[in-house]
Amino acid sequence: MSGKPADHKTKSNSSFEYRTPNGTLIAIGGRENKGDDPAAEDSNSHNLNFVKNEILERFVNELPGKNPLIVVIPTASSIPEEVGRTYVKVFHQLKVKNVEVLDIQSREDSCKEEHLDLIKKANGIMFTGGDQLRLTSIFGGTDIMRLIKERYFKEKLVIAGTSAGAAAMSTQMIYQGRSEEGFIKGAVSITAGLELLNDAAIDTHFISRGRIVRMAQMIATNPTFIGIGLEEDTGIVVKKGREIEVIGSGLVMIVDGRSSTSTNIYKVQEGVPITIRDLKVHLLGKGDTYTIEIF
Amino acid sequence: MSGKPADHKTKSNSSFEYRTPNGTLIAIGGRENKGDDPAAEDSNSHNLNFVKNEILERFVNELPGKNPLIVVIPTASSIPEEVGRTYVKVFHQLKVKNVEVLDIQSREDSCKEEHLDLIKKANGIMFTGGDQLRLTSIFGGTDIMRLIKERYFKEKLVIAGTSAGAAAMSTQMIYQGRSEEGFIKGAVSITAGLELLNDAAIDTHFISRGRIVRMAQMIATNPTFIGIGLEEDTGIVVKKGREIEVIGSGLVMIVDGRSSTSTNIYKVQEGVPITIRDLKVHLLGKGDTYTIEIF
Repeated sequence: MSGKPADHKTKSNSSFEYRTPNGTLIAIGGRENKGDDPAAEDSNSHNLNFVKNEILERFVNELPGKNPLIVVIPTASSIPEEVGRTYVKVFHQLKVKNVEVLDIQSREDSCKEEHLDLIKKANGIMFTGGDQLRLTSIFGGTDIMRLIKERYFKEKLVIAGTSAGAAAMSTQMIYQGRSEEGFIKGAVSITAGLELLNDAAIDTHFISRGRIVRMAQMIATNPTFIGIGLEEDTGIVVKKGREIEVIGSGLVMIVDGRSSTSTNIYKVQEGVPITIRDLKVHLLGKGDTYTIEIF
Repeated sequence: MSGKPADHKTKSNSSFEYRTPNGTLIAIGGRENKGDDPAAEDSNSHNLNFVKNEILERFVNELPGKNPLIVVIPTASSIPEEVGRTYVKVFHQLKVKNVEVLDIQSREDSCKEEHLDLIKKANGIMFTGGDQLRLTSIFGGTDIMRLIKERYFKEKLVIAGTSAGAAAMSTQMIYQGRSEEGFIKGAVSITAGLELLNDAAIDTHFISRGRIVRMAQMIATNPTFIGIGLEEDTGIVVKKGREIEVIGSGLVMIVDGRSSTSTNIYKVQEGVPITIRDLKVHLLGKGDTYTIEIF
């Protein structure tokens, strides 16, 4: 145990088991294949891991019971009606008949009795892409979010989110930060996400937009959080709040700073590049597993 | 329940009781009186709530057992030796004989066996002031922080922090942000703190430095977190992770955005002033209590 920070292998999590949710999370890096996009299939024709509809089909297969209800929440999007319609169509194609769109656009909206009733009946929830700051600033601290969280911990509720919908799931959430400046102190804006996934920090479109630098800055600010960078058409299925399985055609990058040995972030001024040593990084593909050690 | 976001009064917390810690937290807004500062006494001569040594004496009185051990952690400070000496002196004056200074200055330092052993024996821990980003970037994800957290949840450990040491306790932590620009989107830097106090966001030197605007921006990003603004020589004693009692000579400002009805933060560009409606704000003084509703 001496000589370096928290060793991933040797710790027992016994004292923290009480945090275990019964539900399942599916976080997706954005642009998951929706079956009817020939361009996507074309651009993936050289990728042997590409399977049409894979991720959304997995979401459907995880739903408990017969004749399940999916609620699509397009709040993050600036074109919520269009996005809602797209998901209704693809879930119908995947043989789910009961699909409702819950287009909450303000904090006051969020607490209407009929909306709470819909969430009470849902077996699966899909948070679409858009802007994650819309999700946290509109849902944070509301009755509807409390209900979602309580059902996720107590029941077999399946919650999926793509792009912004995935970024908003973890405790740490980046909501602004250009990739090319991500290593400059102050160039990354962080706040707390919806805390469905603890001890983690999710970022999306990860490989295609070169986001490891902004992830590294987030981790340097507090290395407790395991960075999870999700590529497009790629996701993770999370059970028990920590057991991860990779799905989809691309890669997941795990960035673990718990054993990092130094950083300059608390010494340098804004505008100066930040450094951090001894990040542990894993690149995982379909079928790979990883367990977040609960802190 | 309808018509507005989460109502503070009507919710049961039954499903979240498993998060209850056995330890006690004392978060202090900075510059707590240390007995021997005539200037402080002078400037407080008109404040009938001022009591010499009040806050540190309360910390001492909360310690369990006879002949307790206090460990002072001056890591946040740029003058750790001087700060450490000051606390050793004042705790000796308050009749605590066993006081050790644990001056961890890097992530590698944090994991030395002798440091872990000291934390295993501590009955009270005092995090001094300085820069909160030093605390989270040096302690985040390390063995020593895990040990502190585990002992805080399982045992009667008392953890105090002042200024940076208090700011680093909550899940949301501001580490940069000038008061006069605090309402401009992008002018406030947030990351996660050490998560000893959940569902909260602590800020310090709160009244004297006019920090409510930066607090409001933090809350707008995710209103789940109850803002706790601590004035200097003022603190909160927190039991069960949520039951707050105010101590000291100044005020505590509680900023509750859970029932806020709108904000522009997800609509406007960086550089634009952010707005938020229907924050609930409480100003509390010595002896007042407040319970954080666990989300």
